Amino acid sequence: MLDAIASAPGVSRAGVAARTGLTKATVSTVVDRLVTASLVREHGQERRSGPGRRGTSLSLSPDGPCGLGVEIGVDYLATCLVGLTGEVRGEWTRHRDNRDLPPEQVLSRVADALAEALADARRQDVTVAGVGVAVPGLVDTASGRVTVAPNLGWQDVDLAAEMHTRTPELPGQLVVGNEANLAAVAELHALRHEPASPSSFVHVSGEIGIGAGIVLDGTLFDGLHGFGGELGHFPVQPRGPRCSCGARGCLERLAGKDAVLDRAGVDDVDALVAALDAGDSTARAAVRAVGRVLGSTLSAVVNLLDVPTIVLGGVYARLHPWLSEPLSAELGDRVVGAPRRRVEVRRSVLGGEAAVRGAAAAALRTVLTDPDAYVLRARQAESRTTSSVGSRMDGGNGSSPAS
Amino acid sequence: MLDAIASAPGVSRAGVAARTGLTKATVSTVVDRLVTASLVREHGQERRSGPGRRGTSLSLSPDGPCGLGVEIGVDYLATCLVGLTGEVRGEWTRHRDNRDLPPEQVLSRVADALAEALADARRQDVTVAGVGVAVPGLVDTASGRVTVAPNLGWQDVDLAAEMHTRTPELPGQLVVGNEANLAAVAELHALRHEPASPSSFVHVSGEIGIGAGIVLDGTLFDGLHGFGGELGHFPVQPRGPRCSCGARGCLERLAGKDAVLDRAGVDDVDALVAALDAGDSTARAAVRAVGRVLGSTLSAVVNLLDVPTIVLGGVYARLHPWLSEPLSAELGDRVVGAPRRRVEVRRSVLGGEAAVRGAAAAALRTVLTDPDAYVLRARQAESRTTSSVGSRMDGGNGSSPAS
Repeated sequence: MLDAIASAPGVSRAGVAARTGLTKATVSTVVDRLVTASLVREHGQERRSGPGRRGTSLSLSPDGPCGLGVEIGVDYLATCLVGLTGEVRGEWTRHRDNRDLPPEQVLSRVADALAEALADARRQDVTVAGVGVAVPGLVDTASGRVTVAPNLGWQDVDLAAEMHTRTPELPGQLVVGNEANLAAVAELHALRHEPASPSSFVHVSGEIGIGAGIVLDGTLFDGLHGFGGELGHFPVQPRGPRCSCGARGCLERLAGKDAVLDRAGVDDVDALVAALDAGDSTARAAVRAVGRVLGSTLSAVVNLLDVPTIVLGGVYARLHPWLSEPLSAELGDRVVGAPRRRVEVRRSVLGGEAAVRGAAAAALRTVLTDPDAYVLRARQAESRTTSSVGSRMDGGNGSSPAS
Repeated sequence: MLDAIASAPGVSRAGVAARTGLTKATVSTVVDRLVTASLVREHGQERRSGPGRRGTSLSLSPDGPCGLGVEIGVDYLATCLVGLTGEVRGEWTRHRDNRDLPPEQVLSRVADALAEALADARRQDVTVAGVGVAVPGLVDTASGRVTVAPNLGWQDVDLAAEMHTRTPELPGQLVVGNEANLAAVAELHALRHEPASPSSFVHVSGEIGIGAGIVLDGTLFDGLHGFGGELGHFPVQPRGPRCSCGARGCLERLAGKDAVLDRAGVDDVDALVAALDAGDSTARAAVRAVGRVLGSTLSAVVNLLDVPTIVLGGVYARLHPWLSEPLSAELGDRVVGAPRRRVEVRRSVLGGEAAVRGAAAAALRTVLTDPDAYVLRARQAESRTTSSVGSRMDGGNGSSPAS
C-alpha cells in the first residue's frame, strides 16, 4: 500500500483501493495507522483528471522517518540522513584514509560517525528508521558480512555484528550492501526526474576503486550471490602494476582516482578540475588516456550485456566533460555493430554522493516493505522513553521500570 | 499443454489437466488433435507413484515432425534434423570457408545445403516443422536480419527474406538467431541429463570466432536487443593484431581456433589433439597460453555477472583436458573473492554441434508454442499434395486443380 502511495503521490484512499485490489474499508484502516505513524500525510484534495468527487490526497510524509546512510570509502567516511520523500536532512563527509588499518579501527570511526549523525537526527527531532551501510567490496547482503574488500584490506568481516556491538542502540533495521550496487539504485531513482531517463544502464563510479552497478529494465542485476558488477579488477595490462586484489594491471590501478591524479601530477580532484579548466596539457592527456582505457573496458561490458547507456559516477561525474569524448570514441571503435548501435555516455545526477544516498534509501526501503515492523518498533521505543521519564501512556503515574 | 507433456513424459490426460488447470474434457479434445497431428503419442500406462487408476501415458511423439537446423559457420556449413524427443535424424557438415565471399554466394550454399537436408527428410518420410538458422553475428531475431557478422564480412543482410526467395518451399516457420545464444540454450537442455547440471553458466564456444551465451537461472540472457554475449571482441592486447571487426587485439584473434593452430604450428584441430596427446611441447604451450588469455577474459565475465560455471564449447570442448588447468589458474588469480568463490570449468556435452542443434530446437519450439498453426499448415500442405496428385480426400475423382 505504501508503494502505491509512493508511486502516485496525491492519490486518494479510493485510488489506493483500485491500485491494490483491497477494499476501501481495509485501505482506510491501514492508511489511518500509517498517518498516525507519520509515514503518510493527508493534504488537500486528490490530484487526478476525470470526473467524480475528489478524495483526500495521500502522499509519503516529509515529516516521517529518515534513513541513515553510511559509506565506508577507501579514503573517506560519509553519512547522510534522507527522508521518505527524498529530502536530505544532513550530509557529512570525513576525509580519512581507511586503507591498511585493522578493520577494528575503521569500525570505531564508523561508530563515531554514526553517533554524530544520530545526535544530529535527535537535535532535528527526526526518527531514524534504519541504517544502511555501503562497502567497497563483496557483501553477503543476507548476513551483512563482507566477504572481501580488497582496497580496505578486509577479508570476511562480520560488519553487521560488529556494528551492533559498537552501537547497541542502532535504530531500526541494518542493511549492508556493495557501494556500487547501492549507488546504481540511487542513481536509477534520481534519473527518473531527468529528461530521457534510461531504464537500463551501467553506473560506473570512479574513486580509488572502480565499481559498477548494472541496472536492467529498472532492476539491479547483481548476479547469483549479489557479487555482480565488479569492474575494478578488469584485466587491462597483463604485466601492469600490482593491484590490491593480488593480480596485475587491473582497471582501477590504471584508471582509478589515484592513477588519474598521479598521471596528471596533481594532489586532489579539485586541483585536477582546475588544471583541466585551465587547459593544462598534462592533465588533459591524463584524462584522455583514462577515458580510452575506460572506453575499451566498457566496450566489453556493452558487448556482453547489450546495455545502451553508461552513467559516469563518483569522480568520473566531475571529469565527464573531458572523459566522455575519448571514452565514446573507444566505444565507437570496439562495440560490435557500432556506429549503428549508439551507446550514450551520461553524467550521474548524484555524483560522489550516490552510494551513501543509496545506503540511506535501502534503510528506508525496509520501512516501505514492512511498515508494521517499523510502527511496532516506534511504539516500543516510545514506551521505553516514556516509561523511563515517567509514562504518558498509562496515565502518567511516574513509576520507574524495573531494570 | 505440449509443454506440460514435454516436461513430464508419461503423464496422463488427468495429469495434464491438473498441471494446466484446464478441464479434463478440454484436455482430451486437444490431446486427440495433437495425437492426430503426430505431435503426441499414447503409449501404455501413465508413469507416476501414488494410488489410483493409471491413465494412458502421453509423451511427445518420436514419429512427429523434425526441426531443421542450419549453422552458417565461418569455415563450415552444418545442417541437422532433430525430432521432438531430441533424437537426431541426420547431421551434415560441409567444410568450406565462407569468409570474404559476397553474402549471395554463401546464401546459395545455404540453399543447396537446405535442399539436401529437405530431400533427406522426404526420403525418411519426416515432416519438417520449421527451419532455424544460426549465424555468427548480431541478429535482429524479430525480423531475421543480420545486423553485422564481422567474421563473415556481413553487414545488414536480410537473411530471412533472402532464404525465402532462394527456397520458396521453406517448410514451417523460419527462425534466425545468434549461434552462441542458440548453442547455449541447446547446451542447457543437454546438461539437464548430466549430474550436477548447472542452471547458470556462460557457454563459451571457440571456433574461428569466439561466442558466448549467458544462461542465468535456466534462461538465456541476451540483453536489450538480443545482442548480448559478444565475447569475441573482448580487448586483450591494446596494440595486438587487427581483427575482422576493425579493432585491435580482440580475444578471438589471440585465442580463436586460427590463433591456437597457428601457435601450435598445426593445420587442423585433429592434428592439434594428436600433438597434445603425444605430449608435443609447442602444442601444449600454445594451448596453455590460450587457456590463460581465456581465463583472464572469463575472470572479467565472472566478476561482472557473478556466474558460477563456465562451459567450454566448440573447439574448446575438445581441448578441455589441456585448457581447463591454465584457465582455472587464471580465474583463481583474478576472480574477486577467490579462492572462496570456486568457478567450475566444464566441458560442453554437445561440443561443436551445439549451435546447429540449438537452431533445430528453436525451429521445433515454434511448434510447441503454437501447435495449431503447425496443424493448420500440415493440413494445407496435405491438401496441396493430394489435390495435385489427385485428391484422396474428396473420393478420388482424379480431377486436376486449376493452376
